[in-house]
This record gives sequence, structure tokens and C-alpha cells, in this order.
Amino acid sequence: MSNALLCAILAIVVLAFVYILSSYTKVKKMNEGTEEMKKLADIIRQGADTFIKIEFKTIAIVIAILAVVFTLFIEKTSGITFIIGALMSSIVCVAGMKSATFANVRTSNRARETYSLGREKSIFETMKVALMGGGISGLGVQALGTFGILFILFIFGDISPNATGHGLVLQSACNPTVVRITTYSLGCSIVAMFNRVAGGNFTKAADISSDIVGKNRCGLDEDDPRIPSTIADFIGDNVNDIAGNCSDLLESYVATIAASIMMSVIVFGKSDASMFKSAIMFPLALAGIGLLSCIIGVFISSHIRMSNSASKQLNMATYISAGITIVGSLFACLKVFGTAHTEVFTLGWVSPWLSAIMGILSGVLIGILTEIFTSSKYHFVQDLAKISKEGTAFNVTMGDGLGFISCFPPMALIGIAIMVSSRLCGNYGIAISALGMLSFVGTTVSIDAFGPIADNAGGIVEACHLPEELRSVTDELDSIGNTTAAIGKGFAIGSAAFATISMIISFIGNFSTNVDLNIADGKVMGGAIFGGIIALFSGWLTRNTIESAQAMADESYEQIKQPGILEGTKTPDYGKCVSIATNRALKKMLAPSIIAIIVPAVCGFIFGPQFVGGTLVGATIIAIMLAIFMGNSGGAFDNAKKYIEAGGVEDCPKGSPAHKSSVDGDTIGDTRKDVVGVALDIFIKMMSTVANTLSPLFRI
Amino acid sequence: MSNALLCAILAIVVLAFVYILSSYTKVKKMNEGTEEMKKLADIIRQGADTFIKIEFKTIAIVIAILAVVFTLFIEKTSGITFIIGALMSSIVCVAGMKSATFANVRTSNRARETYSLGREKSIFETMKVALMGGGISGLGVQALGTFGILFILFIFGDISPNATGHGLVLQSACNPTVVRITTYSLGCSIVAMFNRVAGGNFTKAADISSDIVGKNRCGLDEDDPRIPSTIADFIGDNVNDIAGNCSDLLESYVATIAASIMMSVIVFGKSDASMFKSAIMFPLALAGIGLLSCIIGVFISSHIRMSNSASKQLNMATYISAGITIVGSLFACLKVFGTAHTEVFTLGWVSPWLSAIMGILSGVLIGILTEIFTSSKYHFVQDLAKISKEGTAFNVTMGDGLGFISCFPPMALIGIAIMVSSRLCGNYGIAISALGMLSFVGTTVSIDAFGPIADNAGGIVEACHLPEELRSVTDELDSIGNTTAAIGKGFAIGSAAFATISMIISFIGNFSTNVDLNIADGKVMGGAIFGGIIALFSGWLTRNTIESAQAMADESYEQIKQPGILEGTKTPDYGKCVSIATNRALKKMLAPSIIAIIVPAVCGFIFGPQFVGGTLVGATIIAIMLAIFMGNSGGAFDNAKKYIEAGGVEDCPKGSPAHKSSVDGDTIGDTRKDVVGVALDIFIKMMSTVANTLSPLFRI
Repeated sequence: MSNALLCAILAIVVLAFVYILSSYTKVKKMNEGTEEMKKLADIIRQGADTFIKIEFKTIAIVIAILAVVFTLFIEKTSGITFIIGALMSSIVCVAGMKSATFANVRTSNRARETYSLGREKSIFETMKVALMGGGISGLGVQALGTFGILFILFIFGDISPNATGHGLVLQSACNPTVVRITTYSLGCSIVAMFNRVAGGNFTKAADISSDIVGKNRCGLDEDDPRIPSTIADFIGDNVNDIAGNCSDLLESYVATIAASIMMSVIVFGKSDASMFKSAIMFPLALAGIGLLSCIIGVFISSHIRMSNSASKQLNMATYISAGITIVGSLFACLKVFGTAHTEVFTLGWVSPWLSAIMGILSGVLIGILTEIFTSSKYHFVQDLAKISKEGTAFNVTMGDGLGFISCFPPMALIGIAIMVSSRLCGNYGIAISALGMLSFVGTTVSIDAFGPIADNAGGIVEACHLPEELRSVTDELDSIGNTTAAIGKGFAIGSAAFATISMIISFIGNFSTNVDLNIADGKVMGGAIFGGIIALFSGWLTRNTIESAQAMADESYEQIKQPGILEGTKTPDYGKCVSIATNRALKKMLAPSIIAIIVPAVCGFIFGPQFVGGTLVGATIIAIMLAIFMGNSGGAFDNAKKYIEAGGVEDCPKGSPAHKSSVDGDTIGDTRKDVVGVALDIFIKMMSTVANTLSPLFRI
Repeated sequence: MSNALLCAILAIVVLAFVYILSSYTKVKKMNEGTEEMKKLADIIRQGADTFIKIEFKTIAIVIAILAVVFTLFIEKTSGITFIIGALMSSIVCVAGMKSATFANVRTSNRARETYSLGREKSIFETMKVALMGGGISGLGVQALGTFGILFILFIFGDISPNATGHGLVLQSACNPTVVRITTYSLGCSIVAMFNRVAGGNFTKAADISSDIVGKNRCGLDEDDPRIPSTIADFIGDNVNDIAGNCSDLLESYVATIAASIMMSVIVFGKSDASMFKSAIMFPLALAGIGLLSCIIGVFISSHIRMSNSASKQLNMATYISAGITIVGSLFACLKVFGTAHTEVFTLGWVSPWLSAIMGILSGVLIGILTEIFTSSKYHFVQDLAKISKEGTAFNVTMGDGLGFISCFPPMALIGIAIMVSSRLCGNYGIAISALGMLSFVGTTVSIDAFGPIADNAGGIVEACHLPEELRSVTDELDSIGNTTAAIGKGFAIGSAAFATISMIISFIGNFSTNVDLNIADGKVMGGAIFGGIIALFSGWLTRNTIESAQAMADESYEQIKQPGILEGTKTPDYGKCVSIATNRALKKMLAPSIIAIIVPAVCGFIFGPQFVGGTLVGATIIAIMLAIFMGNSGGAFDNAKKYIEAGGVEDCPKGSPAHKSSVDGDTIGDTRKDVVGVALDIFIKMMSTVANTLSPLFRI
């Protein structure tokens, strides 16, 4: 391994840390606004802190147990790397969430302070604060993910294709560097899984219950502070949309680096040493270049005004980061592979770069497709809004149709990208393509985290009785945030698809030539159909959410009926709602998360690796489809409602039957897009990482 | 081939024809009842006839074109066998639909005539008529499917593993018997596809629009004859639930016979001649024994009273048929394989029988599982009904959760059955397992067809203003019919899964050792994700249905607003509604059906067989999951509504907000269960049959 390269990447990571710290300090220094705002922000911050604290206590126990098991039975160093992964993921969550709960109130205050300068200027200034907050999460994800890998490489030394290792108790032969990398990735996975499952349950139980109690039962507005579960909803935005999302994408990013290292071992481990070294160096270089490009992209777009439209300004961050990555990685590819000779690369040294481009392009195109299906600028959402006149059944059925139709274009894109990149560089190409897509994940997450911060800021403006006209600024940012959130979801599932497929292929590769995942084999095909387990997971999460929402709505309604609450003379007991949501979410978190570990383990021990391989494939294909369906139908329902509220459908004002139907659709979509859709990708990534980790123990 | 065996099977087929004809004559001789009933029955019959006539004109053109293409390019005899398949399927549709439109009114009349004998006796007598009608469809499916295969074997002679053939123009080498069998199966497929897509659109557009106009807009009951689209709804029951279902299951049955013959060629084609002959004989014998057992089962349960409960009486038909098949096939297996020696059978001669049992057991268990998730006797549907109090959004989300959870148990069952049966007899075992499940399809379809006949009978009782108390008899039959329909749907998708998987494996087998469907290959994996095409198909059908329903609801509402209609002094223009539904359904039928042909063809020519194999696998796995989800969530919504109507939820009578929410759920479920869910299985069967047919033309 070239130490110069590792040091260069480390320098970039350090630069990112410096940037993050300076943003954090800058945000914290800003003014929080009125006393009322300070108080509310404090409640939100404390609620989020409490949630995370209780959650991490449970997570810590699970991690400790697994770390011991891995150390004893798989590889003696793998417990440590597993803990490092969990640690990186936890730090990102906490840092992202903390900075978001600082940035939200400061964003509303910036709107308050700048409104006199004119709406356009105010939007831009307000956006800068929210993006600065989001940047902490985004760059944190990529910097910490990279740092963990470097740390492991520095501590344990080089990756060697021929090294052998074993657990402290069980003496199964395995490649220790591969196991270290997979357990590192698994550490990230497990935190992400708990975060998503618990966070999703928490936030949507709060959101749905305040919708139901507010809109349906009492005729109040969405963020009306008289609804006792409203504050839980604000907290949920930070818990799920920030912390959950950070750990999710950290995991995808780490998994793709892990997969490309494993694939290097599998594809080039038996080549000459220099080729193998190059194969390992390229993905690391790509990660480093990507991180640098993200720092530049996020910095520029939160400091230099390039467009009058806030949404274009945000997009510029993506374009700058993607552009620098594309150009930089071409030079890196030339430098690393310029003199390499291998039959694997069908177009010579440029092949890995082209594979990376396939991934980058897919990522950008999936984003565009997601926007087409979920933004009210296009006819899909407009049709959905119009048919709401016929009632909820029509609205939901039309939304289902839209969701299903929207699955195919991204799936076709991913399918073809995988085929082409494997044509270019064999299975190594698939991993590189995945990494290409995630190489500028820092920017993607920054923009994504912008959304919930803006959403919270809008809520604070409403809840703190700030002037109505400020709402037009924060609403604009919120609506941009909705689109970026939908795009972020598309990106998350797209990248998870690539990451998982790389992991599945390297899982098979672990058995070298002994295992063939021929789907025309009963074991593999049987396993693939058994992959329907993913549907169980989806159903389970859905049911849990709706039950929690019901419990919270009952509590909330009970409170609101007390004298003084509706009149605004008495403050509701927000804490009780938060504690109900927290306890329920954490109680429901364990079981579904544990299936993701149990299923590949048990199936592998009983039915062997071919069945597990089949299960991973089946679950992945279903998960990709379902996640896109959930995300897009949910996003479309949400925006169809907003389109009606904005007066997009003639004769259907707010409060009309059509609007009520669209609210029903939106509520149905909430569970789909923010609980199930976003958890599916972690489920498949985690199953395949577990399979990879346990592969030394499976009988063939 | 043993001519004695073929003759014995032919004798059973002839016996079935005799039984069908005698039932048909008996049903037709029965009294139709009052003048009003006669008139209504006539309208339904004419509407159904018109629909089928117009539909078959379009189908005939497509079939003629494809027959010419196959004859010219693939195998010169394949055009004829393709037409034979289409013919068998068409005859079944027409015969099933005709007999159902005779049996429906006679069932209501039998209720009228026997009501004075007491409710229990009346239910039993009425059930007999409906089951006799259903038996014509059911036995027709199995008898005609078998007859077609025999016919081809008699005309073109024996199956030879080494024969070669080619098209009239293109000289690609192929095995002519295999191509004849696959094109025969494809002929059945294509009729089934058009039937399901057009029939589903027709019937649900009618059903949903009369629900909306009746319940939501005018406060009328479901089958109130003042709603102009009601009659189209009655016709739809016959068109989709009878004709569509018959052609669907005929197709599954034929596809599994085809797959087991192909698999015999692939697995045993290179063995000694006697082993190969035995491998071909066993599935034919199994089909023959199954048909005989169905004749006996249906005869006994529609003539001899064995239970006080009509639903148990119906189940007896299944148990008798399954029992005879299990015992009979054990003897057949001993006779055929008793002296065979092959390493493929891991447990000796009994292995194929055990594989068949795996299929039979899976079929029965899937039925039971479907009932657990969709019947109001169990807590799933009861929970769903209870949560309707919280509004439509809760109801739909809970139903989604139920639907997803319900996917896993059947999928796990199918997955494990496939693994075990392939363990027992290699890939031959998978095909035999599929055929085992379908060996008593005659009884399954008979019971399934009982449902829509009973449903129609109930509608006629209501529409013709017969005494209210008759409704209690027909309602009882209708509710039994709902459960059998849900079970039938579970069975249809289960058997389709087995059939498709056999077809996919034989598709790969066609390329012998040159093609390996290794999922860790970028081409195969890319193809598998491209299999998301099935979601596009689902979304398309959903959107078409909802658009047709909207058009019909508008027409229906326009009519109902005219003076005299609601007062009952003027008859609505039923014909106009029927013609709108027919034209829309047929216009929307072509495009989605054609994707199923185009996709494997185009992908095969451009990307090669591995990509197509991947696509088939991906589409199949998603389709199994989605079809179960659609069927079960739809069935559960329907029964939750009925549970509320029957007073199952305290303080929520008919007309309460909870009931209204459950009606919304039911309407959403209509499209899911009767349009999309039932079409998905044909889509995957057809794609894999097309791939098999075109395989000689694909470059490797």
C-alpha cells in the first residue's frame, strides 16, 4: 500500500474535520432569536438528546455482545473493527443531530432578521444557515467513514490476499483483512438499522398522530403548538431525517469501499502484486478525491451566490462536487492503472474510470427521475391531485399506480449500469461503479440534511407565533427541502442497490470456485423466493408505526380535551408525548433489526451458502422495487396535497373533500416513505454484510 | 411412449367431457324463475357474450400473426400447436362463462323454490346448482388442457430428445417436440393474458364505479338495479372471475406439463431410453389420475351430502380429489419408476412421488394461509376492521402492513418446497412438484367458479326484488364464495410460481452447458434488476382501471340524475355502460399484454439469454410477492368491510365513519386483488414461455 496515498487522504479528512468544526462553531455563535424561540429550540434539543441517549444504551449492549462473538469465533481483531464502525456511525449521528438542532432555530431567526432585506435575499441568507448545518452532517458522513478505513489500515497494516487469521476460540481459516473490513462495515450497519427503525417509528407516530388529532379531529393546522404531539414531530425530524439518514448513507459509503477492497482481493488477489496494489489504491483515491470535491462544493454553494433560485444554488453544490470527482478520478485512474496490463479491463486503463462514471451518472439520473415522479411540476403528481376529487380510494389507487410505474425506470437504469460496468471491469467494475455513485455522498447528505433543518425552522416560525410573512420564506425552503429529500431517498436506495450487489458478489467470491450461484439450482432459487422475508420486515414496520401513532393520537387527544389547551392558556404536556414515542419506538426496534442478523446466519448454517446467496438476491430485488415504490408514492402523495393546498386544482380549496382525500393519501404515504422505504435499504445491506462476515463459518 | 397410457388418459378425458355435458344439460333444464329474473339473466348473458365476441376478434388477429411468425422462423409445426393452445383456452373460457351465466339465475331460483324447506336445506340445494355450474368450468380446464397435449402427441408422434427441426424460413436447429409443447402453452398464455387484462379492467371499472356512484354519491346499496353500471358489474363477474380464471389456471396447468416434459428432455434426454420414457410418462399419468380424482370429487360433493356446513361440503371436494391423487400417484410412481435406476433420485423410485406431494402440500397450505390472512374469523382482518375507526389512512396503512406480512409465509413455503423437491429429483423434481400442485386443478377451479356464480345469484335476488329472506341464503353462499375466491387466488399465484420457475430452469436447460445463470455475473444480476418491469405492468393496469372507473362513474352518475331513474319508474341505459366498459377494456388490453412478449424477445436479441434469464428471475420474485400482497390485502379489506357490516365492531354500524373508511379500503383493494394481483402470474408465465419459445433464436 502506498503510504503517500494514505497520508494524502488523511490530509483531506483532516481538512474536512477542520471545515466541520468551523461550521459548527459559526452556527452555534449565531443568534437564536426571541425567548420563545430559545425555549422551543431547547425543548426540541433536549428531546432529541434524550431519545438518542436511551437508544444508544440499547445499541451499546447489542454491539458489545456481537463484538465478543466475532472476536471469539470469527477473527480475533474483528471485534475491535466492529466497534470502530459502530463508533464512527454513532459520532456522525450525534454530531449531525446536534448541529441540526442548533441550526434549525438559527435558520428561523435568520429569516426573522433578514426579512426586511426583501424575500429573495432573505431566502438566500436563510438557506445559507440551513446548508451550513446540513454540511456538518454531510461532510461528517464521508470524512468519518473514510477515517475509519484509514485508521484500520494504519493499525493493522496492509491488505494481503494471502493472509490468514482466525477467532480466539473457533479456528476457521479466513482472510483477516477482509473480515476486519466487513465487520467495520457491519458496525456502521447495525447503528444505521436501529436508528432507522426506531427513528422512523418515533417520527411518524408523532407526525401521523398530530395530523390526525390536528386536522381530522380538531381542525387545527399542521404545526399548531396546541397539539401535544407536535413537538415530538419536530424532534422526529432530527432523529430520523438527520441521524437516521447520516448513519444510513455512512453505511452505504463504507459498504461500497469494503466491497471494492474485497472485490480487489477476489478478482486480483491472484494477479501480480503491483496490479493488486493498484486495484486497492483506486477506490481509496476515489474516496479521497470525492471528499475533497464535496468540501469544495458545499463551501462554494453556502458562501458564494451563483443563482437567484435557492434550489439551483443547492444543485450547484452537486454539480461542482460531481464535476471535480469526474475530472479528478480520471487523473487518478491514469496514475494508478496507466501501466497496468490485465485482461479484466476490456477498454484498458480507462475502464475503471468509466465504471465509476456509470455509477455517478446513474446517481444523477435516479435523482432526476425521482423528481419527475414526485414533484408537482410534472403531470404525475398533478393527475394525482386532480383525481382526489373522486375520493380517497381513487387518490390512493392512483398513487399506487404512480408508485409502481416509477419503479421501472430507475431499476432499468441500475440493471443496465451493472451489466455495463461488469462488462468493463468484471465484478471489480460493479464495486467501483457503486463507489462512483457514492464518491460525492458528502454533498448529497448535506443537501438532504438541509431539508429537515428547513422543515424544523418553518415549524418554529409557526409555533412561536412569528409574523405570517416569515412563513413564506421558510415555506419556500421547506418545499425545496421536500424535493431534495425525495431525491435523497432515490439516491439512498440506488446506492444501496449497488452496494448490496457488490456485497453479494463478494460473498460468493469468498467461496472461490467452490460455490456457484446458479439460479437454475433448486437451492439458490428456493433461497431467492425465501427472500420474501423482506416483505415481512416491511409489514412489521408498517404495523408498528400505525399502532404507535394510534397510541400517541389517543394520548394527544386526551390532553387536548382538557380545558385551557385549545384556548392556548395552558401548555400541553409535550414531555409525556415524547416519552410515549421514545419508549414505543425503542421497544419495537429490536425484533425487526435482529431478523437481519438472524436470517442469513440461520439459513447459512442450515441450508448452506447457496441458499443464503439466493435469499440475498431475492430480498435485494424486492427491496429495490419496494423502496422506490414506497419513497415515490409517499413523496407524490405529499406533494399532491401541497399542490391542492397551493390552489393547483380548480374548485378544491384547503378543507374541500378533495383536499381531505389528499391528506389521507399523505398520511398513508408518511409510513411508506419515512419508515419502510428508508429502512429497506439498510435491511438488505445489513443482511449481506452479515453473510459476508459469517461466510468463513458456512459449510459449502 | 406407451400408447396404453395415452389411451387410458384419453378415456378419462372423454369421461370428463361426458360429465361436463351432462351437467351443462342438467343446469340448462332447470327453471329460471320469474319473468324479471329471466329478463335480467338474459341481459347479463348477452352482455358477457358481446364482450367475449369483441375481445376474441382482437385476440384472433394477434394469434394469427404470431402463428405465422413461429411457423416461419422457429419450427414449422409450432404455429399449429400455438393455435391449438389458443383454441383450448378459448373453448374453456366460452364454456365456463356460458354455463356460469346459465347457472347464476338458476341458483337464485333454486333458493326461491327451496326456501320453504328451511334455511339449511335451502343453502345445500342452492349450493349444488352453483357447484354444478362451477364444475363445468373446473373440469373443463383440466380436461381440455390434457386433451390438447394428447392431441399433439397423437398427431406429431413421440417426444424424442434427439429430434431436430426448424422454421419454414429460418433454419435454426431446435428440438421440435419441445417447441411444439412450449408454443401450445404459449397459445394458452396469450388468451389468458388478454382475458385477465381486459376482464379485470372491465369488471373493476364497473364495480368501483357502481360503488362510488351508489354508496358515496347516492347512498344506495351495492347491487341496487337503479345504478346504471350494476349490470356491467354482474357481467364482469362472469367475464373476469370465470373466463379469466379458467384461462389463467388452464395456462398454469399446461405450462407445468410442458415444463415437466422439457425437464425430462433436459435431465434424462441423455440417459437410457427407458428412463427417458418413464420420465415423460409419470407427469402424464399424474395429470390423468388428477383429472379422474377431480371428476369423482366434484361429483360426490355436488350430489352426496356429507356435512351440514356448505363450506365444509365444498372443502370435501378438495380433500377427496387430493386424497385420490396422492394414493393413485404413489401406485403410478411405483409402476413407472419401480425398476428405474438413476442417481438423480436421491430416495429411489419414491422420490418423484415425494416431489409431487411437496407441491400438493404447498398448495393446500397456501390455501390455509390465505384464509388466515383474509377471513374475518382471524385477528388480522378483525384488527383491520377495528382500526377503521381512526379513518381511511389508518385502515389502508394497516391493510398494507397485513398484505406485506402475509407475503412471507407462502413464499417461505414455496422456497423450501422448491429446494426440497430439487434435492429429491434435481430440476425434474421442481417440475413434478409444480404439476403435483396443479394435478387436481379441476376441483380447485370448480370451487373457485362457484364464487362468482353465487355472487351473481345474490345480485339477481336483490335486483329482481325477490323476498329479503332469500338474501340470507345467497349471502351465505356469497360469503363462502369470497373465501374460496381468496384461496383460489393464493393457489393461482402459488402454482404460477412453481410453473414459472420450472419454465425458467428449462429455458436455461435449452442452452445445455453453454449458459450458466450465475447470479454473481453482471449480466444476470443486471437482468434480474431489470425484472422491475413487472412493477411497470402493475402500475399500468392500476392506472388504466382507475381511469376507466372514473369514466364509467361519470356516465353512470349522468344517467342517475335523470328524472325517473332514482324513483324506479325508468330503467337506466345499462347497455351504454356495458359498451363504455367493453370498449375501454379492450383498448387498454393490447399494450400491457404485448410487453410480456416484447421484453424477453428484445432483451434476448440484444443482451443475450443470460440477461433474459436474470430478468425472468427478477420479475418472478417480485411478481410472487406483489401478487400475494395484492390478493391478500384486497381480500382483507373486503372482508373487514363485511365484518363491520355484520356488526363485528362495536358502535360502528353500516354508514358510520368507520364503515365508510372500510368501504374506501375495499375499493382500493378491488383493483389490487381483481386486476393487478391476478394478472401478475400470467405476466411471468407468459414471459418465461415466450423466452422458451424463442430460445433457439438467441445468441449466447
